[in-house]
Amino acid sequence: MGVVSRNWLYVKKFDGEPTDENFQLTEEELAALQDGEFLAQAEFLSVDPYMRPYMGRFPVGSLMIGGQVAKIVESKHAKFPVGAKVFGQFGWRTYTVCNPDKAQGDKPYLLPDFGTLPSSLALGILGMPGNTAYFGFLEICTPKEGETVVVSGAAGAVGSVVGQIAKLKGCQVIGIAGSDDKCQWLKTLGFDHAINYKTENVLEALKTAAPKGIDCYFDNVGGTITEAVMRLMNLFGRISVCGTISNYNTGPAMVQDPQRDFVFKQLKMEGFIVSRWRDRWLEGILANLDWIKQGKLQYEETVTNGFDNMPKAFMDMLKGGNTGKAIVKVE
Amino acid sequence: MGVVSRNWLYVKKFDGEPTDENFQLTEEELAALQDGEFLAQAEFLSVDPYMRPYMGRFPVGSLMIGGQVAKIVESKHAKFPVGAKVFGQFGWRTYTVCNPDKAQGDKPYLLPDFGTLPSSLALGILGMPGNTAYFGFLEICTPKEGETVVVSGAAGAVGSVVGQIAKLKGCQVIGIAGSDDKCQWLKTLGFDHAINYKTENVLEALKTAAPKGIDCYFDNVGGTITEAVMRLMNLFGRISVCGTISNYNTGPAMVQDPQRDFVFKQLKMEGFIVSRWRDRWLEGILANLDWIKQGKLQYEETVTNGFDNMPKAFMDMLKGGNTGKAIVKVE
Repeated sequence: MGVVSRNWLYVKKFDGEPTDENFQLTEEELAALQDGEFLAQAEFLSVDPYMRPYMGRFPVGSLMIGGQVAKIVESKHAKFPVGAKVFGQFGWRTYTVCNPDKAQGDKPYLLPDFGTLPSSLALGILGMPGNTAYFGFLEICTPKEGETVVVSGAAGAVGSVVGQIAKLKGCQVIGIAGSDDKCQWLKTLGFDHAINYKTENVLEALKTAAPKGIDCYFDNVGGTITEAVMRLMNLFGRISVCGTISNYNTGPAMVQDPQRDFVFKQLKMEGFIVSRWRDRWLEGILANLDWIKQGKLQYEETVTNGFDNMPKAFMDMLKGGNTGKAIVKVE
Repeated sequence: MGVVSRNWLYVKKFDGEPTDENFQLTEEELAALQDGEFLAQAEFLSVDPYMRPYMGRFPVGSLMIGGQVAKIVESKHAKFPVGAKVFGQFGWRTYTVCNPDKAQGDKPYLLPDFGTLPSSLALGILGMPGNTAYFGFLEICTPKEGETVVVSGAAGAVGSVVGQIAKLKGCQVIGIAGSDDKCQWLKTLGFDHAINYKTENVLEALKTAAPKGIDCYFDNVGGTITEAVMRLMNLFGRISVCGTISNYNTGPAMVQDPQRDFVFKQLKMEGFIVSRWRDRWLEGILANLDWIKQGKLQYEETVTNGFDNMPKAFMDMLKGGNTGKAIVKVE
């Protein structure tokens, strides 16, 4: 009998916040390896905000999408030997048979040498979220020393890295997050100001924290928080739109038409998906790794134990239950 | 006694649509010329949408702002000789004493040789609006052959040029305007489709006219028309925000939060004021002039006769009474 993978399927369309009913745990017996394939055993799995809107495009019955760090336990591919750690877009499953040369979209890759750092970071600061921060902020916001930067969703896996990179570039940095604990953590990361949007008036708090106005905005949330930030943007301000977590479980909010500010302040806004920098993937990982080794970049992980708890970890993350990267450790 | 200029002043803050009460015609006796100065007599004056929001920043009692084509009738500046035609940001006045070397902001300039074309074009297709179309569309939208381009405010001084340049670049072009007559005119200019937003459902009409989606959007209006265009933008679409005429006489409308589309379609949007290309000003004018001479670029002017009618021409233009460039001819 072959290896049996445990898989989480998407069995009911999301409507509002995900619930247990949207997911079903199944088992799948895997076929023996063909030439060019390897068998990978999941060690750490990722739950990310993007999964909520993306899964809406898949039919019910699909495997839940997502990246994982896995250990190669059997191999018929010379470049992916047994024992190596791999990152792959394998979905929510415990075992995967993969032919890396035939993989569509983002191909699996061997983890670079993280030194003594845990391999789970390949899901966070040394993987997609870290690269999202690195490229999405530096390439689109093009921050300059002395400028004022605002980050929403600042205590998340991406936002917390954006704010720290902004500090490394000599900017004043304001983070917006959803609890006093998160705001406290942002201050320990070096953020100059942190605003709790659940207890403070964001517009008034921003006016105080950004007396010279806002030059760069890294947007993870959209909606009314973004509306407030827009009002304080400076001439030639840049806005990088990474996500809109505020509306993933609902429809988009109504906001004031932003076009007038776009004209008179000559603002520039660009949305992105990090895969556009696929060709420079290792550059981002190695830059963040270097900053970590120098003690200039900190991270946090919110770890949920047990593959059985994937849906719970996902639902908690969407409600803001995580600080830093939300991951699941397969026990 | 010196030359007397007739001047239109801004004497009451705009609130909603401008009315006669916002303006007052006065006379001013000008001092004798100093060295380095010239005296210019207005021939054609411009009324443009931007004047509505801009004047709100000036105190009551200010001269109305605006460009004009004037003839130099007296001069103590070697490079601005008597008889020459000049474009200057002189405001709503019949005579101006100007030291071009000390002018702040946009400096006055002698008109290039338009051949047999009328000098009034320096207010339209061979001036600020033409350059707004040339730079604002080509530099920000970066249109590619075969792409679908939408222009709002398409029958105006800027929009009508944008659409024609888009055709010259091999694009499919859809114009949105406010009357059947304007739509008819757009078709004669070569627009592939024209939508009358006052009688058609813009979103449904766009779906029909742009079956492959929209790659570039040149936005003159903002508000709900823009909201409809946004829904049909393609992956990596570009939006150039030139104006928001829809809300110059009112507050901004509420629209659906656009951020989600920005992420998943990786859209790019940039607002601009054409003076950012001041250093390339003549390039735009000469390019448009060349296309006109080749018969590839057409224009229309809506001419109001009489300096006394400046406010009327301005108010009519804001209501969409003009096709092409709205100008006033001093009688």
